[in-house]
Amino acid sequence: MSSSKKVRVGIIGGTGYTGVELLRLLATHSSVSLSVITSRSEAGLPVSDLYPSLRGFTDLEFTVPDPAALAECDVVFSATPNGIAMTHARDLLAQGVKLIDLAADFRIKDIATWEHWYGMQHACPDLVASAVYGLPELNRSAISQAQIVANPGCYPTATTLGLLPLFEGVQGEASALVDASNIVVDAKSGVTGAGRSAKVANLYSEVSDSFKAYGAAGHRHHPEIWQNISAVTSQTVGLTFIPHLLPMLRGIHATIYADLLDPSQPLEAIHERFASYYSNEPFVDILPLGQHPETRSVKSSNVCRIAIHKAVGSNKLVVLSVIDNLTKGAAGQAVQNMNILFGFEETEGLSSPAIMP
Amino acid sequence: MSSSKKVRVGIIGGTGYTGVELLRLLATHSSVSLSVITSRSEAGLPVSDLYPSLRGFTDLEFTVPDPAALAECDVVFSATPNGIAMTHARDLLAQGVKLIDLAADFRIKDIATWEHWYGMQHACPDLVASAVYGLPELNRSAISQAQIVANPGCYPTATTLGLLPLFEGVQGEASALVDASNIVVDAKSGVTGAGRSAKVANLYSEVSDSFKAYGAAGHRHHPEIWQNISAVTSQTVGLTFIPHLLPMLRGIHATIYADLLDPSQPLEAIHERFASYYSNEPFVDILPLGQHPETRSVKSSNVCRIAIHKAVGSNKLVVLSVIDNLTKGAAGQAVQNMNILFGFEETEGLSSPAIMP
Amino acid sequence: MSSSKKVRVGIIGGTGYTGVELLRLLATHSSVSLSVITSRSEAGLPVSDLYPSLRGFTDLEFTVPDPAALAECDVVFSATPNGIAMTHARDLLAQGVKLIDLAADFRIKDIATWEHWYGMQHACPDLVASAVYGLPELNRSAISQAQIVANPGCYPTATTLGLLPLFEGVQGEASALVDASNIVVDAKSGVTGAGRSAKVANLYSEVSDSFKAYGAAGHRHHPEIWQNISAVTSQTVGLTFIPHLLPMLRGIHATIYADLLDPSQPLEAIHERFASYYSNEPFVDILPLGQHPETRSVKSSNVCRIAIHKAVGSNKLVVLSVIDNLTKGAAGQAVQNMNILFGFEETEGLSSPAIMP
Amino acid sequence: MSSSKKVRVGIIGGTGYTGVELLRLLATHSSVSLSVITSRSEAGLPVSDLYPSLRGFTDLEFTVPDPAALAECDVVFSATPNGIAMTHARDLLAQGVKLIDLAADFRIKDIATWEHWYGMQHACPDLVASAVYGLPELNRSAISQAQIVANPGCYPTATTLGLLPLFEGVQGEASALVDASNIVVDAKSGVTGAGRSAKVANLYSEVSDSFKAYGAAGHRHHPEIWQNISAVTSQTVGLTFIPHLLPMLRGIHATIYADLLDPSQPLEAIHERFASYYSNEPFVDILPLGQHPETRSVKSSNVCRIAIHKAVGSNKLVVLSVIDNLTKGAAGQAVQNMNILFGFEETEGLSSPAIMP
Repeated sequence: MSSSKKVRVGIIGGTGYTGVELLRLLATHSSVSLSVITSRSEAGLPVSDLYPSLRGFTDLEFTVPDPAALAECDVVFSATPNGIAMTHARDLLAQGVKLIDLAADFRIKDIATWEHWYGMQHACPDLVASAVYGLPELNRSAISQAQIVANPGCYPTATTLGLLPLFEGVQGEASALVDASNIVVDAKSGVTGAGRSAKVANLYSEVSDSFKAYGAAGHRHHPEIWQNISAVTSQTVGLTFIPHLLPMLRGIHATIYADLLDPSQPLEAIHERFASYYSNEPFVDILPLGQHPETRSVKSSNVCRIAIHKAVGSNKLVVLSVIDNLTKGAAGQAVQNMNILFGFEETEGLSSPAIMP
Repeated sequence: MSSSKKVRVGIIGGTGYTGVELLRLLATHSSVSLSVITSRSEAGLPVSDLYPSLRGFTDLEFTVPDPAALAECDVVFSATPNGIAMTHARDLLAQGVKLIDLAADFRIKDIATWEHWYGMQHACPDLVASAVYGLPELNRSAISQAQIVANPGCYPTATTLGLLPLFEGVQGEASALVDASNIVVDAKSGVTGAGRSAKVANLYSEVSDSFKAYGAAGHRHHPEIWQNISAVTSQTVGLTFIPHLLPMLRGIHATIYADLLDPSQPLEAIHERFASYYSNEPFVDILPLGQHPETRSVKSSNVCRIAIHKAVGSNKLVVLSVIDNLTKGAAGQAVQNMNILFGFEETEGLSSPAIMP
Repeated sequence: MSSSKKVRVGIIGGTGYTGVELLRLLATHSSVSLSVITSRSEAGLPVSDLYPSLRGFTDLEFTVPDPAALAECDVVFSATPNGIAMTHARDLLAQGVKLIDLAADFRIKDIATWEHWYGMQHACPDLVASAVYGLPELNRSAISQAQIVANPGCYPTATTLGLLPLFEGVQGEASALVDASNIVVDAKSGVTGAGRSAKVANLYSEVSDSFKAYGAAGHRHHPEIWQNISAVTSQTVGLTFIPHLLPMLRGIHATIYADLLDPSQPLEAIHERFASYYSNEPFVDILPLGQHPETRSVKSSNVCRIAIHKAVGSNKLVVLSVIDNLTKGAAGQAVQNMNILFGFEETEGLSSPAIMP
Repeated sequence: MSSSKKVRVGIIGGTGYTGVELLRLLATHSSVSLSVITSRSEAGLPVSDLYPSLRGFTDLEFTVPDPAALAECDVVFSATPNGIAMTHARDLLAQGVKLIDLAADFRIKDIATWEHWYGMQHACPDLVASAVYGLPELNRSAISQAQIVANPGCYPTATTLGLLPLFEGVQGEASALVDASNIVVDAKSGVTGAGRSAKVANLYSEVSDSFKAYGAAGHRHHPEIWQNISAVTSQTVGLTFIPHLLPMLRGIHATIYADLLDPSQPLEAIHERFASYYSNEPFVDILPLGQHPETRSVKSSNVCRIAIHKAVGSNKLVVLSVIDNLTKGAAGQAVQNMNILFGFEETEGLSSPAIMP
């Protein structure tokens, strides 16, 4: 395909880890050309000076966000902190530019809830209603028609994919297997999830060779996960969610505990339901019974890998779900959403195996 | 104290990580002298050749286990795999030697349960009954009179200390705060917990920069934790326990979820109960409300550090409990038990702050 | 291209880290089909059971090495320990199968030297003479005609690429810039370089959070580096080479010290010589003056990234050269050699940017 | 000893890693009492809130530096950035308070050199002359009489201890074994050496699983090492020094290359010279021939562990020297210097074995 026919891509806020991950994935995507990448703080700097891994792959420099340049794009990825994408959204839509927001601005439908958890007033509540939550395994059809895609959070992606097959579904087509009122999600994330800003708490010397929970008093991904589960069950959702910080670069592991409604149901049947549910999904892999997914098995890939177990000593189903927080948990899923938006093969740019080890 | 008055210590199976941790701690203990350290595979090798960190601290060589040499000891630590200590126990006791077993041979009172989980026949079921489970915070008085101390497992130590203040207690002196039938323990351990044997699964290249659950179908520490909780509550205990492997050297983090019987109870009151419960304990530290314990805060120390939180979106109490698996989770607690057995200051040899970072 | 036209590839000894790296790279190579992968120890096991990262990418099982199956291949990669490929070579060549040996069997031209360092008798000295040392930047033309390609060692790759521009060249076309008699190479490797066998020395708990030199009394890569330098200079080569083990997964960093013959020469001129020397090389990147290459900038990629500095306090040129030991240092370079052998685009299957971070 | 008789200690700038390491070591020192610890940024914060590892060990709060409070001390450790201690020195000395500076203000005797490398004007050049460079193995006697001790840098400590036995000595009492004009020091440090300030370059996500050289164009420790070698040889010193950053917390490994003046000299004789040179040193350990020191063998301890090798292919002696950069490379050596200053047992507070692993 000639360059002039390629989808023109812009990136707002490309200096962070989701930014460089987008660049890595787009570098091998045959149907896009990167037009502009913005950063106020690094304007003028060649991208490959900040990220030598990209030397030879791009000649772009970071530029100050320029509405005219962004308007020339077909799609803009916003890889900024929360609260920025919503200030660009109306202008982009007016110019016919699609927006994929990797931050949280368009994820939560209930504006009051969003404003409570994100501590700011929403700039465009009307656009939230029409934005599509970009979890393809839940919303593929709607994504293909979206103007704004709210790319899911990393924890919500791993957790929701681990829970979806257990409930009735969007149209109540299945029966629920677990009690939605008592779900515990013990989630762990690698340090890249904390971003690239200069904070003592994220120094190597603070994080390495140690482990801790954080945000136990409440985390912003709680309402997002709650919203996702509530979308696929009529039960009242009771969710406990505690995140932890892993001394490693990439990867999320969600350990999910839920009470089986019918403890006598064989695990094989539940496993079959998971396998069947995701049988056509290119990026969800259900492990054989008895296995445990390792986060490294998805490192740098867009795959979510899931195993299920029945706990000893209780009637709980235990779901183990792993993703790479920068790929399926951020940039990879964003590219997947772009592929859906523009009718590309959904796996385009996302078909390399995980790097191992 | 002159050397001749010092307690004579023997170590069976000293080549593993609990062995070298025992040596590290005993090296600064003023009231013991190390008489013998055994290893069949390394017999003849100076200890400091295997562990150069101990050069200058000991001139001992590993020797083949010799009953006569062990009989000369006042106390023997068994730091072997499961199933070895029970073959030495009767002889040692006959010679008046106290035994502190760092493995699991004497931890589980129900012999059938033990044999089920450990896959072998017990060599001396009669001695199990009289052995004392060596968690000082639960059994200090009995430990002081014991012939055999069953040093607790690492996960059970972190978990049990996090749960003890929530129940009625051994004599039912308090009221229970949580429902014992629905306890979830999501536990994570550093790699030293897996020991020093040559297994592909524990290679740096297999473990580093990755995370996984293991033993989700059942882990030997489940019955041990269950036994501990059952000892302090009349409720029926329903316990879900899932261990995970952390890409780090030392440290255990137990994240414990339990339903509050009275959700209206202020967290401050529960915090006060924890603080009060452990107010005289030299090795349990309750963090102020709002904090999260890091495993590094106890690295190389015998402290268990605990924080409590109330979850958003449910009525669950969340207890975060950290220890160093080699210290409070193994060798440190063994030295603490020895101190109790011989009437030393309980903190002797265990009073250095954690190494940070 | 239809599958029947693809180059048929076999892998001998595919269970190690170079094996899985080969599989990762070949999975995205458009012109090959993997026919057979052998492992005596894992025969019958699906490759994706050993490496779940490859689930969905291959249905192959490991098989016992079968001469007939190997003879059906167009090219065989040998990713075994040293001493195995030489036992297969004659048969493969007789069947018209090209051999790319990722071990050391065909790297050293002087048989006595090889036998001294590798501690065994060579099985086919006559084939060593015709084998081509597979460093494309040195031997591209010869590689394209080879029957046997001796894929270079990891340390020699990083070191030789850092040194090549400093000497006269194969035909003495340039002038030497440094004194070949006093070269110091202080090299560091990630742990994957030590392979996937079960050894205590490579356990996470032995290697993590620590650093050491090894093989200071002599390392097998010394004669290989010496041979490479000697090929491009008429000076007598005096080489000091000390390897070290880094607590990380992938990456080699060679720090090279050499005395400038003309200390007054501006660093800019030397930099220009490096840049010019490698201007047409797709996998060698010379950093701008003043920068230091990080191993992560080449993680999972086939790039060798080099910087040069002039030392303070001496007349030494300091060359910093990094590669990924599993990619440019092993499997990636092997695929590059295959591409040259079969006339494919040299970057085919090797064109993804490094994963960062 | 009663508290009133203890040496009163102050710490200026106690929030960094050398600060918390000082606190860890002093916590077990029987002859000191910590009077004051200053930090402008954290004034009012309990030390144990910043470092929960110290909960139960100190009730002190950080305070704004107060000359009156510091004047009450017997000794003040300055653990600040460079350029601060020199502003306190004159006042402290006037009050009879001894100063141990863990930064670089008093290390370099040549003021012009210091001002060149540290980029500021020295505040009290006259005091530099009388300050004693606090490497006990070189200057023990002078340290005992000092008013100001310039605690050595981490790289210079590891490097100098590895080189001292090779030269004539302060009074020319021995013969030199190596050519001082061609010394290469390839040094590697763990990340704690970079301090605790919030810089992107030191984030976990920037440093983990990677390795690089830095400061190749010149590093401040070059003149310090040069000064140390020049003090013990009459030869002209030609020194090449390149530091690297290791993805680990603690530890320095210096790999030192020097040309033997008499290549025929047996390595055993050189080894004997090292062993003899340090035979009375409590904190220098010479490994048996054939071994390689690991940084973990000195983790958290004040030991410098050294091995020597003869390189293959050249006449170079290779010295491998490891320390813990926070202990022998900073706080531990500072406590050792304090012990010498006040006539305590030199090992007081420093006698625990390294934590392993």
